[in-house]
Amino acid sequence: MDAYKSSVDFAEATAFLSHACYEQDKMALRATLKNKSILSGLLSRLSSCSSHGRVCVSPVLVAQRRNNSTSPKLKVDFNQSTGVAVMHMQNPPVNSLSLGFLTEFCIAVEKLEMDKSCRGLILTSSQPKVFSAGLDIMDMYGKKLEQYEEFWRAVQEMWLKLYSSNMVTIAAINGSSPAGGCLMSLSCDYRIMADNPRYSIGFNETQFGIVVPVWCKEAMTTIVGHRNTELTLELGLLYNPSDALKIGLVDQLVPEDQVLATATKTMTKWLAIPDHARRITKSMMRKPTIDKIMSIREADMQQYISFISKDSTQKMLGTYLEMLKKKRG
Amino acid sequence: MDAYKSSVDFAEATAFLSHACYEQDKMALRATLKNKSILSGLLSRLSSCSSHGRVCVSPVLVAQRRNNSTSPKLKVDFNQSTGVAVMHMQNPPVNSLSLGFLTEFCIAVEKLEMDKSCRGLILTSSQPKVFSAGLDIMDMYGKKLEQYEEFWRAVQEMWLKLYSSNMVTIAAINGSSPAGGCLMSLSCDYRIMADNPRYSIGFNETQFGIVVPVWCKEAMTTIVGHRNTELTLELGLLYNPSDALKIGLVDQLVPEDQVLATATKTMTKWLAIPDHARRITKSMMRKPTIDKIMSIREADMQQYISFISKDSTQKMLGTYLEMLKKKRG
Amino acid sequence: MDAYKSSVDFAEATAFLSHACYEQDKMALRATLKNKSILSGLLSRLSSCSSHGRVCVSPVLVAQRRNNSTSPKLKVDFNQSTGVAVMHMQNPPVNSLSLGFLTEFCIAVEKLEMDKSCRGLILTSSQPKVFSAGLDIMDMYGKKLEQYEEFWRAVQEMWLKLYSSNMVTIAAINGSSPAGGCLMSLSCDYRIMADNPRYSIGFNETQFGIVVPVWCKEAMTTIVGHRNTELTLELGLLYNPSDALKIGLVDQLVPEDQVLATATKTMTKWLAIPDHARRITKSMMRKPTIDKIMSIREADMQQYISFISKDSTQKMLGTYLEMLKKKRG
Repeated sequence: MDAYKSSVDFAEATAFLSHACYEQDKMALRATLKNKSILSGLLSRLSSCSSHGRVCVSPVLVAQRRNNSTSPKLKVDFNQSTGVAVMHMQNPPVNSLSLGFLTEFCIAVEKLEMDKSCRGLILTSSQPKVFSAGLDIMDMYGKKLEQYEEFWRAVQEMWLKLYSSNMVTIAAINGSSPAGGCLMSLSCDYRIMADNPRYSIGFNETQFGIVVPVWCKEAMTTIVGHRNTELTLELGLLYNPSDALKIGLVDQLVPEDQVLATATKTMTKWLAIPDHARRITKSMMRKPTIDKIMSIREADMQQYISFISKDSTQKMLGTYLEMLKKKRG
Repeated sequence: MDAYKSSVDFAEATAFLSHACYEQDKMALRATLKNKSILSGLLSRLSSCSSHGRVCVSPVLVAQRRNNSTSPKLKVDFNQSTGVAVMHMQNPPVNSLSLGFLTEFCIAVEKLEMDKSCRGLILTSSQPKVFSAGLDIMDMYGKKLEQYEEFWRAVQEMWLKLYSSNMVTIAAINGSSPAGGCLMSLSCDYRIMADNPRYSIGFNETQFGIVVPVWCKEAMTTIVGHRNTELTLELGLLYNPSDALKIGLVDQLVPEDQVLATATKTMTKWLAIPDHARRITKSMMRKPTIDKIMSIREADMQQYISFISKDSTQKMLGTYLEMLKKKRG
Repeated sequence: MDAYKSSVDFAEATAFLSHACYEQDKMALRATLKNKSILSGLLSRLSSCSSHGRVCVSPVLVAQRRNNSTSPKLKVDFNQSTGVAVMHMQNPPVNSLSLGFLTEFCIAVEKLEMDKSCRGLILTSSQPKVFSAGLDIMDMYGKKLEQYEEFWRAVQEMWLKLYSSNMVTIAAINGSSPAGGCLMSLSCDYRIMADNPRYSIGFNETQFGIVVPVWCKEAMTTIVGHRNTELTLELGLLYNPSDALKIGLVDQLVPEDQVLATATKTMTKWLAIPDHARRITKSMMRKPTIDKIMSIREADMQQYISFISKDSTQKMLGTYLEMLKKKRG
């Protein structure tokens, strides 16, 4: 297989770095991450305000406009009879993984995890054309050291929670899913993607001078192997659904309007397996990776803070944001 | 590749857990496993009795009827001129891996291993339609702790002996090969399977609430990669020959009547390689896995005993056996 | 996939073990390997003499005739404007990796590595029909222990330099590339091969009773996975370009006259990625393997010396060389 050709053309590669404000969510996050058992009341503390985000469909770059909404960024539909929860991400316009969103996400997953009647989780997007655009660039620019730490801890937490979930987790990828969105998908047990050639999935970080964390590499390697991971991460490749299927980055393609229905049907098959046996097996498969990540978690944090707070990194991000502003005119 | 679709339908998945009596073999096993250098006379001590097993071809479950035969469970044809031994498994009706069978198997492999004139081993089945149905459920039900230990040590030993063999080992898979049968196949250097869509190979343990040991996962990962292993083990997948070939679970498919002939022909090619170089290379490829397994062997034993002796596990197996009895009515 | 069938027929497998003299290069090598910072003047010290090598196109074995030339074994074209160096291997007749060649190669790579304006390296051959025939058998036969050590250190160094290079490295494989030539290719970031079915690539060592070093296995496993590596190394397989592409041993096939042009075009795409991000990512992907190798480097050395200085090994190599002489009659 010509892995190189199977990637999208560089010139067409699209960045989905995005940003959103999340002022009201910070206290909630702090409480969550410092004391994960305190779940009560956090969601209700998120104050509400009007949203005025919109998708900027520049041919080269898409980024999230300021979005002051702190209305729930997730809609969770839990079906008691099937034991399956569907989590709709609704952080307009592109489900960027802001500190606020990640906080809400971690709380929601933990809630379901603790509910013994919930056995399966389907993750999907309420936003058109995008599953998730990845990490919110606004949480990575012009902040204090402790804010960078807070954000990165939330990113680590999101991955750990999803990757080590006892539930069956299925990503119903109904839109583009670059960078952090791809990581989120990779953390699930199974990936179903809309067969729309305009959507893409992968890790385009290096194209913008950014480097993915090592746990991203570990998780991806277990799915698509070392060589595909090497090519993807070094070249910052995004794949169209058909190429993503070829290398195993997603498991199945279906027409766009059947993504959720197929996820639901697939979930039934996974839930036919006795829970305890499936869980022990899942742990057997993933524990080595989780253990490795846990052992380097603080080193990874220091590495991130050091990298993101560098003058050169901040300057690069600043230039990038300026460019976005001008594009919007 | 849609790994999910390439699996057999759950509803059609067939369990091959089986059972057979082996009372007369126990002393032999104990001697073998406690002092592996004592090989003499063990086979002759196996007393003989009439067999009245038959294959139960229920559409859902196949299990081995009580089979009191202790006639040799293996027929070994060693061709001095080619240096190749063909080992025919003949533990009717479905070559279940009972304590008795495993004992005889380990002794036979060790005998060949110590014979310098024997360079290659072809493993095949004398039973129609099945290569091996996997571990004998009767050795896992209603026994004493030391009996569980004895059985599991024999299972570990079988895998270690085959996986670390200096001989070229080829599995001539002329029938279905689920669970333990698949493990046996995976331990060989090369796998040739009968191209009969009614046959299947894989690990269906989770479908019955059972979990494969970690060394099973390690060995499978080296053959088909992490992702295929994850899907197979978590969902308890059995593959038809064509799908097994696609993911690399077997190396070659041939018409049913040519399985043994092809194995013999393939063996000639492997034996064209100077033994010492091939053996050192084989060790280089497999030693890391073997070392890992050896280091956790006792932990694996404790885990097995703890799991199998649990009330819930025993109850589940009991229910399963009751169901089989009724089916046979 | 039938990995076995996708290999070339054993009978057609061709050994490219070769030999060349290198007397004048030894002092240079010693200086290089003992004090890697002393680069100056080494190349100029290589004295010159006439070459009278020719390719011996025996259908079964190809080996290099004595070649007394110590004229530069490499031609390096560095394009300042693109930042790309093209390194043409010209060690007639088959670019055997002799001590002299390896010395010159390591010096040249280090020179480019230290030149900040050089961002990419394309490795190709000036010799017809062959990329590199692998290690020079003359450096492995009839020498003193310290000479074996010297040679093997150069082999290790070549691999380490190439595998851990900060530059983008592309192998433009315009001919056969067995054994050491394959290792050289595998150390690069990307492999483009001439689509000529008469060329082959792989590791045929076991066919001659030789075993590849463990780092060869480690590197290959990251590219084509464990199973393909196991089959290749144990059976000593060489693949034609089409089969090499199928298992991922090369990334792309192009017509023979377009290999270098395609490599140049591909390099442009790799260099479009910001250097620092690509380098950190490359290090993240390769550091675990490099660390592992560094930790066993001396053990690997002792193993090599012990193996190569054995009477049986030397006798085998002697017989092989005699056979070559007779063939040339």
